[in-house]
Amino acid sequence: MENKSDFGLIGLAVMGQNLVLNVESRGFQVSVYNRTGSVTDEFVSAHPDKKLVGTQSLEEFVQSLARPRKVMIMVKAGGPVDAVIESLIPLLEEGDIIIDGGNSLYTDTERRDAWLEKEGLRFIGAGVSGGEEGARKGPSIMPGGPESTWDVMKPIFESISAKVDGEACVTHIGPGGAGHYVKMIHNGIEYGDMQLICEAYSIFKAAGFTAEELAAVFTEWNNGDLESYLIQITAEIFKQNDPETGAPIVDVILDTAGQKGTGRWTIMNAVENAVVISTINAAVEARILSSMKEKRVDASTQLEGPKVELSVEKAALVDKVRDALYASKIISYAQGLDLIATTGEQKGWNLDLAAIAAIWRGGCIIRARFLNRITDAYRNNAELSNLMLDPFFKDVLNKNQQNWREVVALAVSNGIPVPAFSASLGYYDSYRNERLSANLLQAQRDFFGAHTYERTDKPRGEFFHTDWPEVID
Amino acid sequence: MENKSDFGLIGLAVMGQNLVLNVESRGFQVSVYNRTGSVTDEFVSAHPDKKLVGTQSLEEFVQSLARPRKVMIMVKAGGPVDAVIESLIPLLEEGDIIIDGGNSLYTDTERRDAWLEKEGLRFIGAGVSGGEEGARKGPSIMPGGPESTWDVMKPIFESISAKVDGEACVTHIGPGGAGHYVKMIHNGIEYGDMQLICEAYSIFKAAGFTAEELAAVFTEWNNGDLESYLIQITAEIFKQNDPETGAPIVDVILDTAGQKGTGRWTIMNAVENAVVISTINAAVEARILSSMKEKRVDASTQLEGPKVELSVEKAALVDKVRDALYASKIISYAQGLDLIATTGEQKGWNLDLAAIAAIWRGGCIIRARFLNRITDAYRNNAELSNLMLDPFFKDVLNKNQQNWREVVALAVSNGIPVPAFSASLGYYDSYRNERLSANLLQAQRDFFGAHTYERTDKPRGEFFHTDWPEVID
Repeated sequence: MENKSDFGLIGLAVMGQNLVLNVESRGFQVSVYNRTGSVTDEFVSAHPDKKLVGTQSLEEFVQSLARPRKVMIMVKAGGPVDAVIESLIPLLEEGDIIIDGGNSLYTDTERRDAWLEKEGLRFIGAGVSGGEEGARKGPSIMPGGPESTWDVMKPIFESISAKVDGEACVTHIGPGGAGHYVKMIHNGIEYGDMQLICEAYSIFKAAGFTAEELAAVFTEWNNGDLESYLIQITAEIFKQNDPETGAPIVDVILDTAGQKGTGRWTIMNAVENAVVISTINAAVEARILSSMKEKRVDASTQLEGPKVELSVEKAALVDKVRDALYASKIISYAQGLDLIATTGEQKGWNLDLAAIAAIWRGGCIIRARFLNRITDAYRNNAELSNLMLDPFFKDVLNKNQQNWREVVALAVSNGIPVPAFSASLGYYDSYRNERLSANLLQAQRDFFGAHTYERTDKPRGEFFHTDWPEVID
Repeated sequence: MENKSDFGLIGLAVMGQNLVLNVESRGFQVSVYNRTGSVTDEFVSAHPDKKLVGTQSLEEFVQSLARPRKVMIMVKAGGPVDAVIESLIPLLEEGDIIIDGGNSLYTDTERRDAWLEKEGLRFIGAGVSGGEEGARKGPSIMPGGPESTWDVMKPIFESISAKVDGEACVTHIGPGGAGHYVKMIHNGIEYGDMQLICEAYSIFKAAGFTAEELAAVFTEWNNGDLESYLIQITAEIFKQNDPETGAPIVDVILDTAGQKGTGRWTIMNAVENAVVISTINAAVEARILSSMKEKRVDASTQLEGPKVELSVEKAALVDKVRDALYASKIISYAQGLDLIATTGEQKGWNLDLAAIAAIWRGGCIIRARFLNRITDAYRNNAELSNLMLDPFFKDVLNKNQQNWREVVALAVSNGIPVPAFSASLGYYDSYRNERLSANLLQAQRDFFGAHTYERTDKPRGEFFHTDWPEVID
């Protein structure tokens, strides 16, 4: 082709290929490069009608791009990203833009941002969510980097992203690592959403619901407040039978969950910033426990549980569990957004929580009707201290808290593990309690370590110590 | 003094002073140095009858010690430890020993271990637990470093440590950072113990127990299976009245807990190693939530809870809560020891869990009758895969699980936050469940990300994928 390309992409795994086809479908000419050249050839020749430029060297790739060049990298997070950047630097010219679209750790993104700035290049660390299908049809994109670089990328990003009510599911998140950071928390929230659905399922299973009944429950839920991609695919999963055995597919799948790093990264970040994200935490823990299959099988014959007696009428149980799931989900998002707000403030990123919630409404795995409500909450009050206190969500929580408790108590009494439901309710009950039991803890700390304490009848910041009696062992 | 000293200590804060007095009281002559020289003078002149050598320069300090010199550092963790080591290196001679007795992060200890080895010096990173009182009378000591260095230090460490049934509460934990590592987990476990006691208290408080009744409950508990330093001081705390108001002191103490870093470090380590320590986690989260006092006061008027109705007879409630506390405590230790075992294996430290539990029986904050049982459990079976499965503890759990559930359900129904009780029970119920709900999670992951799954009717390690229907938004 004689014309220079508008966009270039390195790394033609499925996500990369789908992103290329997405960009091309919006009217852009795209150059592609892959380390294994045959992949490039196959990809380009599989799409003869499309404005694609296959290249066999990075030099050729870079030369094929219009300036300022826009080079997106879709390779494995970590070392490979650095390696590609390293090879690109001598070939690019001042003002060219590198976009890392992988699942990079945000602190790596911050390091690369500083590195490329020194080299006179521009860098965007962009979280891209939506899986393979989202990449092809329109993902949710979370780009971080300088405002001026965002301005250059905006037309392409907006045209390829998912759309909800005419709004593109992409916004300039903030400088440096802000985009990859927000994507990381998005993934943590996804962990929470999935675990909460699994806990609802485990209660229904203990109550003897068939796959058909489960499909009906989730289909019904997908027409209400819980409407979301994950609820929708859960309904589809229950409809699916295993061709080999004829049984519902869910019954033949082994209960050992895998995980990549982002859930655990989210927890590390929360611990560093002293923010409680107990629901996501419980979700990550549940995946770890699920993976210990042999140990569980062994323990199941030794550690006793109660007799399972779920003597609740099925329709009533569905309503109660729905309320518990909805309330727990609000808590999980309240915690995740609290973490984003805390880190954003500490980093000086000036994050717009309404805009972040808005771009999660389409394209990504956690897309849900619910996110419209969150967007509204922060549009109405950008200073909202916690999502639970938004008038809409507060009403839901107050209305649902009774059923929520009943579900957790029922599960606990019947030996059904509901760690994320419990952790969410524990957060709610701690947060709404003016007086917790930490006064005793402070007394203990003062007793054995002279750590001092504050008093209820004195101003904050004044510290007191009691001369405790000596204890004799 | 004409003779050279047997031991030297740098850093005369309270812990340092008390350790010096402890060492001296066992018949050793001790040299001391403090950056602010007047502290040294005051300390030495306050103890005219003791074999103490005050020094005013590091040179003088080092010259006053018999070879191989044994120099213990008791300064703030982090930079100050490095600074002291840096100044000591040119003054010490091959084979001299530096002991860091502070709360250093174990990875710092590993770095220093390698650094000092290059300098021809020997290094011990020793966790010292027991607070000021323990330092003076006999702490629990967790030293890490080369076996040969331990052999040199053993006589002094054994003489100054706490004793239980004639056994010294010190053992060679393992190489490098093993000692500080085990001390870190000890602190995490301490967080769990304290939180569990606070949750028991919060239930009793909701049930209207007076401080006097609470003192009686904890005093009684301290004569049974729960006998421990923390239960003992809790009983003392409830006996104490505030001189200013005459009210029980616990009622005038503000419910906002502080924390240093070790609880959070423990969680980071668990996340890195994919080990579930949900009880300790809940304890750290509870401290964070307690510190958000203003937000809680605000939320308390907006987020609703249930009507509190604890219609259980007091004596019966005490029994149930005792069972819940005991079971939860077993879980917390099971998790902490699992983390120690996992890290130990990964690091090749060859840890002896029985010996570790044994040295926690005296001197330290978590000392308890219970630790005899843990010691026995690992002495009987060094390969025990989880503490819950030891015959003794298994019986306790099976006996207590019903009351434990009732307590958690009661608290949840009444809006009393019991995050650590709940997290412990959630772990128990997950661990003893042959089949969890992660099969649905795996179906979801395969649906949106083609992550594949294993099957219940196929060998492990074979992965399958379903062609899921396309969903339309």
